[in-house]
Amino acid sequence: MANGNRAVLFDSPKHMKVEELDFPKLEMPNGKKAPHGAILKMVATNICGSDLHIYRGSFPVPQGMVMGHEMTGEVVEVGPDVEFLTEGDLVSVPFNVACGRCRNCRARRTEVCETTNADVSCAAYGFNLGNWDGGQAEYLFVPYADFQLLRFPDKDQAMEKIRDLALLSDILPTAFHGLMEAGAKPGSTVYIAGAGPVGRCGAAAARLLGASCIIVGDYHQDRLDLVKSNGCETIDLSQDIPLTDQIEAILGEPMVDCAVDYVGTEAHGIGADAQSMDPANAINQVLDATRAGGATGVIGVYGPDPLAASKDEQQGTYPIDFGKAWIKSPRVTAGQAPIMHYNRELMMAILWDRMPYLSAMLNTQVISLDEAPAAYETFDQGSPNKFIIDPHGMLSA
Amino acid sequence: MANGNRAVLFDSPKHMKVEELDFPKLEMPNGKKAPHGAILKMVATNICGSDLHIYRGSFPVPQGMVMGHEMTGEVVEVGPDVEFLTEGDLVSVPFNVACGRCRNCRARRTEVCETTNADVSCAAYGFNLGNWDGGQAEYLFVPYADFQLLRFPDKDQAMEKIRDLALLSDILPTAFHGLMEAGAKPGSTVYIAGAGPVGRCGAAAARLLGASCIIVGDYHQDRLDLVKSNGCETIDLSQDIPLTDQIEAILGEPMVDCAVDYVGTEAHGIGADAQSMDPANAINQVLDATRAGGATGVIGVYGPDPLAASKDEQQGTYPIDFGKAWIKSPRVTAGQAPIMHYNRELMMAILWDRMPYLSAMLNTQVISLDEAPAAYETFDQGSPNKFIIDPHGMLSA
Amino acid sequence: MANGNRAVLFDSPKHMKVEELDFPKLEMPNGKKAPHGAILKMVATNICGSDLHIYRGSFPVPQGMVMGHEMTGEVVEVGPDVEFLTEGDLVSVPFNVACGRCRNCRARRTEVCETTNADVSCAAYGFNLGNWDGGQAEYLFVPYADFQLLRFPDKDQAMEKIRDLALLSDILPTAFHGLMEAGAKPGSTVYIAGAGPVGRCGAAAARLLGASCIIVGDYHQDRLDLVKSNGCETIDLSQDIPLTDQIEAILGEPMVDCAVDYVGTEAHGIGADAQSMDPANAINQVLDATRAGGATGVIGVYGPDPLAASKDEQQGTYPIDFGKAWIKSPRVTAGQAPIMHYNRELMMAILWDRMPYLSAMLNTQVISLDEAPAAYETFDQGSPNKFIIDPHGMLSA
Amino acid sequence: MANGNRAVLFDSPKHMKVEELDFPKLEMPNGKKAPHGAILKMVATNICGSDLHIYRGSFPVPQGMVMGHEMTGEVVEVGPDVEFLTEGDLVSVPFNVACGRCRNCRARRTEVCETTNADVSCAAYGFNLGNWDGGQAEYLFVPYADFQLLRFPDKDQAMEKIRDLALLSDILPTAFHGLMEAGAKPGSTVYIAGAGPVGRCGAAAARLLGASCIIVGDYHQDRLDLVKSNGCETIDLSQDIPLTDQIEAILGEPMVDCAVDYVGTEAHGIGADAQSMDPANAINQVLDATRAGGATGVIGVYGPDPLAASKDEQQGTYPIDFGKAWIKSPRVTAGQAPIMHYNRELMMAILWDRMPYLSAMLNTQVISLDEAPAAYETFDQGSPNKFIIDPHGMLSA
Repeated sequence: MANGNRAVLFDSPKHMKVEELDFPKLEMPNGKKAPHGAILKMVATNICGSDLHIYRGSFPVPQGMVMGHEMTGEVVEVGPDVEFLTEGDLVSVPFNVACGRCRNCRARRTEVCETTNADVSCAAYGFNLGNWDGGQAEYLFVPYADFQLLRFPDKDQAMEKIRDLALLSDILPTAFHGLMEAGAKPGSTVYIAGAGPVGRCGAAAARLLGASCIIVGDYHQDRLDLVKSNGCETIDLSQDIPLTDQIEAILGEPMVDCAVDYVGTEAHGIGADAQSMDPANAINQVLDATRAGGATGVIGVYGPDPLAASKDEQQGTYPIDFGKAWIKSPRVTAGQAPIMHYNRELMMAILWDRMPYLSAMLNTQVISLDEAPAAYETFDQGSPNKFIIDPHGMLSA
Repeated sequence: MANGNRAVLFDSPKHMKVEELDFPKLEMPNGKKAPHGAILKMVATNICGSDLHIYRGSFPVPQGMVMGHEMTGEVVEVGPDVEFLTEGDLVSVPFNVACGRCRNCRARRTEVCETTNADVSCAAYGFNLGNWDGGQAEYLFVPYADFQLLRFPDKDQAMEKIRDLALLSDILPTAFHGLMEAGAKPGSTVYIAGAGPVGRCGAAAARLLGASCIIVGDYHQDRLDLVKSNGCETIDLSQDIPLTDQIEAILGEPMVDCAVDYVGTEAHGIGADAQSMDPANAINQVLDATRAGGATGVIGVYGPDPLAASKDEQQGTYPIDFGKAWIKSPRVTAGQAPIMHYNRELMMAILWDRMPYLSAMLNTQVISLDEAPAAYETFDQGSPNKFIIDPHGMLSA
Repeated sequence: MANGNRAVLFDSPKHMKVEELDFPKLEMPNGKKAPHGAILKMVATNICGSDLHIYRGSFPVPQGMVMGHEMTGEVVEVGPDVEFLTEGDLVSVPFNVACGRCRNCRARRTEVCETTNADVSCAAYGFNLGNWDGGQAEYLFVPYADFQLLRFPDKDQAMEKIRDLALLSDILPTAFHGLMEAGAKPGSTVYIAGAGPVGRCGAAAARLLGASCIIVGDYHQDRLDLVKSNGCETIDLSQDIPLTDQIEAILGEPMVDCAVDYVGTEAHGIGADAQSMDPANAINQVLDATRAGGATGVIGVYGPDPLAASKDEQQGTYPIDFGKAWIKSPRVTAGQAPIMHYNRELMMAILWDRMPYLSAMLNTQVISLDEAPAAYETFDQGSPNKFIIDPHGMLSA
Repeated sequence: MANGNRAVLFDSPKHMKVEELDFPKLEMPNGKKAPHGAILKMVATNICGSDLHIYRGSFPVPQGMVMGHEMTGEVVEVGPDVEFLTEGDLVSVPFNVACGRCRNCRARRTEVCETTNADVSCAAYGFNLGNWDGGQAEYLFVPYADFQLLRFPDKDQAMEKIRDLALLSDILPTAFHGLMEAGAKPGSTVYIAGAGPVGRCGAAAARLLGASCIIVGDYHQDRLDLVKSNGCETIDLSQDIPLTDQIEAILGEPMVDCAVDYVGTEAHGIGADAQSMDPANAINQVLDATRAGGATGVIGVYGPDPLAASKDEQQGTYPIDFGKAWIKSPRVTAGQAPIMHYNRELMMAILWDRMPYLSAMLNTQVISLDEAPAAYETFDQGSPNKFIIDPHGMLSA
């Protein structure tokens, strides 16, 4: 067995590095033994858009924190209270750390687990949310393994579809959750704010669930092209035309049934203001684009943002067009996605070939651990790729 | 305007005929004026599997009743209380007659409207359920037109997809309802009992909503081939192998998440008993095929059947394996589908090309009104076609 | 039959007046005939907290508009397309005007009817939302009577409980809707912002549905006393103690499962700021008081407010603590309540004596039409009464 | 610590006995260590109506099996993977044994746990469902303690309400589940088949959730009197009047919104047939009593019954009036209740005094372990008591 654990660490804003750490133990962040835990050998561990919040410094984390919360791996060790997993199992790790034992976990709300983060009811790997090491590494400790891990039924079959299955750890279920928050169902018209990887997963998930007209808005034409080639309509937000006018030109009416913000506070203005930060613009746009009686999901991250321009925003208060939307009877659902709610079913859809367009939309690129720091930089500049780190060289290029 | 109204009438079991009737008036079956009604010129009016219950005599109707409950037509006349439809509009007619004003209609349960059938809370065109004339005719009276009719937004666009849109009146929403009853969602595994037109619509709808493994069981190989060519798995029920064994061979486990009975009391046995009627076999099979925690839909019609072998069955009592299923926590939902719950969204899915496989699965054949009696006979013998009557020669062959 | 129609009219901010108008006709606001309409003789017609928005001038309406949207009355005339109501029926009028024929009404979303208000998809009697005359009058025209009106099954029985049943037109179902938006169910802990009539109805409805700990916050002790005497906990918001601390003192934890804002933009600050307007304070407080995984309803009205201090608020943009709440996975539902969704069931609960505490909590006071202008003034000053106008002297004092 | 464990054992049909067994270990039924388990000292352990199936011999269990599945107890020992419970905690044990780790448990369907019973996906204490010892004993082993056990927040407060809280282990959540299956909500009209303890809990739960007219049917007048004194209507099924006629006499219409079968296959006929077993009578009655568009719950147990008269029934096939009900669009949900879905919220309702009528309706009687065998006999004869065994003399009489 390996002794060390090479990993991608946060060094300082705009700077990631790769270093060798100790091999993980079956221990909780506070040092307590974890008989329910497992050690995984990372097979595919992706860089996520939310990692960029850390990279840019708008979500502060300690220097030296191991990055990564989108992990697929092989079980190499299990604790004495792991009954249903064995060495060699290939599994997907939901990014939210969840105990399966608290009130919220019992109610399937694993994204707000009450025990895995002492400060707020929300924990994640590779974030400053509960001190859990991330998975952009060779190995990862996962607690509550029986509860948390999704085992792929056939390892060989899974390795053939590993680029798609690697999305089950976060962005595909997260994107799907946004659509569920927004009430999407077969025949719905959908507006997707943001064509980054999670927005593109949203577009793919909208196709899976039978949405009718799927409209994606972004500033990057190469990202928009990826969804346009795969059955979606697109809106170029750098044009100086109101969003609802652009929707009407496509759909024949100015608003959609379901709109999802896949952007968060890193939003920019539209048209002439496309170069300026406008932290509440994405949520205000999806509120504007949702019809009366429709619903809105907010997958994009909002929070106190130390880099924000105003003191209000630094404390988590944003100017929201709630008084414009109220008359439309809005329903707005936000927050992290409870991955376990969706990952098994989405795995089944992938294994039965129901998302043949997924890889093409995501435009995945496999890289080595050492290439990760550079990939952060490329991704931060709006690359149309989704980067999957392959720490052990197990994926075919 | 036309003076007469040629129509397909029920004459006696196994015998339909075409005759000329009076042009319909804006009047209810009891002769009361219907200011809320409209007269439609039939553009596409289909023969349904449930029409065969009438054809065979197991659902008794008066001699001379106008057949048909799957209608798409053009508005040619509206009553003084029709505000939102005008002459020339192309519309789909939900098969369930519903007032939009009673407790059940207000709650979207239009399939159990309390006012349109004085005997039971369930009305339909072309059935002995409220004395509503059917639509296998040149013209049709529809009450509560503003509430009931689904207008296609663009007539030319709709005429191009008319074979698909003609399914919105009944079997596509009905099939979809069966899946909703059974809890189907993206990633679900589904068993569909029956590969007749409504079962095939079920298979198509399961694809639309993102089901993973879709298994269809039937005795007719040509029907099964239609779904097999379009992304589904099939089971030949004339083989002498238990259903759950056949499912396991496909899926790796013997039961599915969601099972739907699209057959009803005209079911046969399996394997060696494939030639014998076995009225409770379809429901018992779907109960058997549903996993613990799954759910079951019963779209197939059950009722007192005067042609049934036993007195119990003649009165509507069937031997059901409820005591075998109880331990699995079954949820069984049955009855007619509230078409209005689904038809608009499914129209959107068709108009945005989300069901490209629909026509191929249904294998629709357009016929004239005069060809209808013969089509009943062909359909009764297990034809793999779905027949669409084109009374005015408006559809391209 | 009566010839005139005495009514309460909006004259100018802080000034209502009573005048005689023409007897209503079966006509839409645009003069078109309404065969689906009915004329009602008002039996009980209440003053609502949202009428105070008009009274104060923050919701502008034309001079001379007839006030009132909480009506219970007797049918005195019906149009030729009214089938299920007859003269003498005693009915409750849902405050939202709804056609029952558009997409949203068909989906039970009568609060966002697409046809009864040409400007926005939201209509109401006695507001500047579709030009519908209000019901603080002797008589009222109601369109789409069969669809809209809730008939009481037994008139004598209903007259005995008329003070409770009079709440079905708006505030009881509205309050109940707020709880449904917030996910309340048996055993839930609930925070209710505002002890005005609708907030007190919320407290009563929370008891009906089996909520466990029901906490009501307000500044007026006499209003709080009404709920405290009837099974609820109370918080005095003029105290300088953070809301979550006050909740924790009662409940043992600082947040509740379900929180509802029954206040809207007329909110004030807490503690030392209790005298100052703080339009986003109520929504920010309910967001703060909702636990991770809980949900929030916003019944209180938000909109562009011409009287607001800031330009942002005048246009409907408010500083909302969304970035503080996001980590808790909030679900926020807002807007007017679809009364028809709830009024029949709540009527049944009242008729079967399941809300014996309702009258005591509401503290209803019956007044004449002529007393209405003065009642507006009293109510605006924070009266603990709910005023029911009795234009024909039909209620016992 | 105690060495032995006195317990109620099944000896033979109609014969229970009390014997001393070994003190339980932290071990699974197959002898495997259970680091996730706990040992409880029983504080209140009830006799349930479903225990009578075993008593009568219609649900066969091995001789010597420890009876009991309704347990409330004190934690006396925990395994090394129990993190959130400590010695001295007072807890309620959900009767369904569930791992919290399988697909169904992750989806909150703990009543069909896939791992705790190797034969069928359904496990329970004190039944022949997974070889789990029952809790009518001094001590009990519970696996997956962190996941399964409901801790009462304040032990002293809980002991004061222990007779009510003791119902949380099974019959109160079970009864509530039946109402949820049947779609009950505030204002619903409800028919409850059976006034045994679980039916009476159903009546109490229907009151909690705000049902309007609650009708209970049974043959035992003393049981009916308990609910009649506490706000419910009653029907004497030994009268020779059709059920729907009796409902109509109370309600003014012959069917209810929601009907629940709390009886199962031990049903009798009505009227003249009240003395004869009629195993499908309860389900057929609830189907008959449910209105079109309503729903039906089946809490009463159905299964292969070796004591049944017919071979069909012995194998689990029953003559069900499904063909009569189909036209009403029935929804029937059956099976064991997932206790964890409801027990926390119902605990909160009890702790906040929202069910003051519960004890009176249940008519609980506290007995010693040695009195248990006789209590079985009394209960089998239709006693209106609910028996709570107090093995350590900890409850006040």
